[in-house]
Amino acid sequence: MAREFLHKLDGITEKNNSLVCVGLDVEMDRIPPFLRKEAKPVLKFSTALIDATADLVCAYKVNIAFFEAMGIEGLETFRQILGSIPSDVVKIVDAKRGDIGNTARMYAQSCFGYYGGDAVTASPYLGRDSLQPFLDYEDRCTFVLCLTSNPGSKDFQYLTDGEKPLYQRVAESVAGWNEKGNCGLVVGATHPEELMAVRRIAPELPLLIPGIGAQGGDVEQTVRFGTSADGKKAIINSSRGIIYASAGDDFAQAAREKTIELRDTINRWRVKP
Amino acid sequence: MAREFLHKLDGITEKNNSLVCVGLDVEMDRIPPFLRKEAKPVLKFSTALIDATADLVCAYKVNIAFFEAMGIEGLETFRQILGSIPSDVVKIVDAKRGDIGNTARMYAQSCFGYYGGDAVTASPYLGRDSLQPFLDYEDRCTFVLCLTSNPGSKDFQYLTDGEKPLYQRVAESVAGWNEKGNCGLVVGATHPEELMAVRRIAPELPLLIPGIGAQGGDVEQTVRFGTSADGKKAIINSSRGIIYASAGDDFAQAAREKTIELRDTINRWRVKP
Repeated sequence: MAREFLHKLDGITEKNNSLVCVGLDVEMDRIPPFLRKEAKPVLKFSTALIDATADLVCAYKVNIAFFEAMGIEGLETFRQILGSIPSDVVKIVDAKRGDIGNTARMYAQSCFGYYGGDAVTASPYLGRDSLQPFLDYEDRCTFVLCLTSNPGSKDFQYLTDGEKPLYQRVAESVAGWNEKGNCGLVVGATHPEELMAVRRIAPELPLLIPGIGAQGGDVEQTVRFGTSADGKKAIINSSRGIIYASAGDDFAQAAREKTIELRDTINRWRVKP
Repeated sequence: MAREFLHKLDGITEKNNSLVCVGLDVEMDRIPPFLRKEAKPVLKFSTALIDATADLVCAYKVNIAFFEAMGIEGLETFRQILGSIPSDVVKIVDAKRGDIGNTARMYAQSCFGYYGGDAVTASPYLGRDSLQPFLDYEDRCTFVLCLTSNPGSKDFQYLTDGEKPLYQRVAESVAGWNEKGNCGLVVGATHPEELMAVRRIAPELPLLIPGIGAQGGDVEQTVRFGTSADGKKAIINSSRGIIYASAGDDFAQAAREKTIELRDTINRWRVKP
């Protein structure tokens, strides 16, 4: 069903009064030492974090790279983690896939079908036909990379065709492809002015915004410039600042406290509906 | 060791007198029906193709998407297929990954470490720091997407900054990042004039060239414009035209014949060293 993702996102945003997305980018050597001695430490760590924060967030973003690096077993863990997220919370498979149509269909099947994501991240470089197989899943959402939070975003995303930079062309194109209400954009919090420009181009699209916390993005500007007119549709991600808040056996409680803090800071700047 | 990949590529190109790369993009419903009834049909199909063609090619390109779509078991098969490729033939993990540095490191570990690829394909959209973790593997090769073979390549790759289109900016940048002799570019055979332009920008870089056969790229132009001055460093990929040459129990022999045909057609147009 078209717009089903937006209903889900709005629903959980209201229920938990939160724009926070927790990024479960789990590296084995950063999880609490006491857990590493047990069986399935990554799974235990992740599900404990989900249990401790599921009433405080609108979404979890799980970056598949961290699990791919652990091989087949890691991907089994990835699937179990996604499966343990409560069904009313948005599950984002952060995969940044992009390939020609024939192949993109396989990635869509993997991310939406096999892993069961509500949303996926995808690269725009190969153009519309590379995204279409994702967009064919009308009840999910495809967040297309627009302006990323890393230093290398300067290398190509700002190239200007005489009028507008590439990242704005991507935003315009994706806004135009949003016929089914199942497109979104990824815009890094490290670029507040550009975030404002993207929000103008796409007033109603959900934005996935990484880059606050460890990467230095400012929360106030992210909320002011990133939310839609009614103070919603911004999914503000924090990974390391939350999940590694403590390396002790209080890691889940510490993550909960960091999540409350971030949620409340964000809500201070949100337009109230 | 720097330039180790180029030595390997030149060595196998000379040994097998071939620029052919066979793309093992295996879809379950396209493999011969008699094989589908057996255990591990995808693995059997792929290894039979490798056995039948390994003396005729310079490389195999295996697109991980097709295996991801089959879940965990598919990825185990992916690893076994890569492991069955003779050690002197180039193994390309076609993954088109691209993520921020912290995460790209995980993808590099997966593609080069866990799966043991000699080379990987990667997306340029996130810029240099997203590619650096791949480039840190000095003895492998990172083929960066430059101009792709699909219709959507027109959407962003041709955006021009007043002087040059994006795909040429990508080619220039990657040529500049090639300090260790471990960079390559992906350029679709469906754009012969642009292929010539990229070869001018990067006279010595290995080019991975998909798009002949089913996608319509012309072999003569691909060879003339895609090879380096000494008739090498072009890895010309064919997938469907070779691996699905027959749906009968002669599929491997049929694939061998198609590979010989392609190799010989390519060699007709090659500059002899």
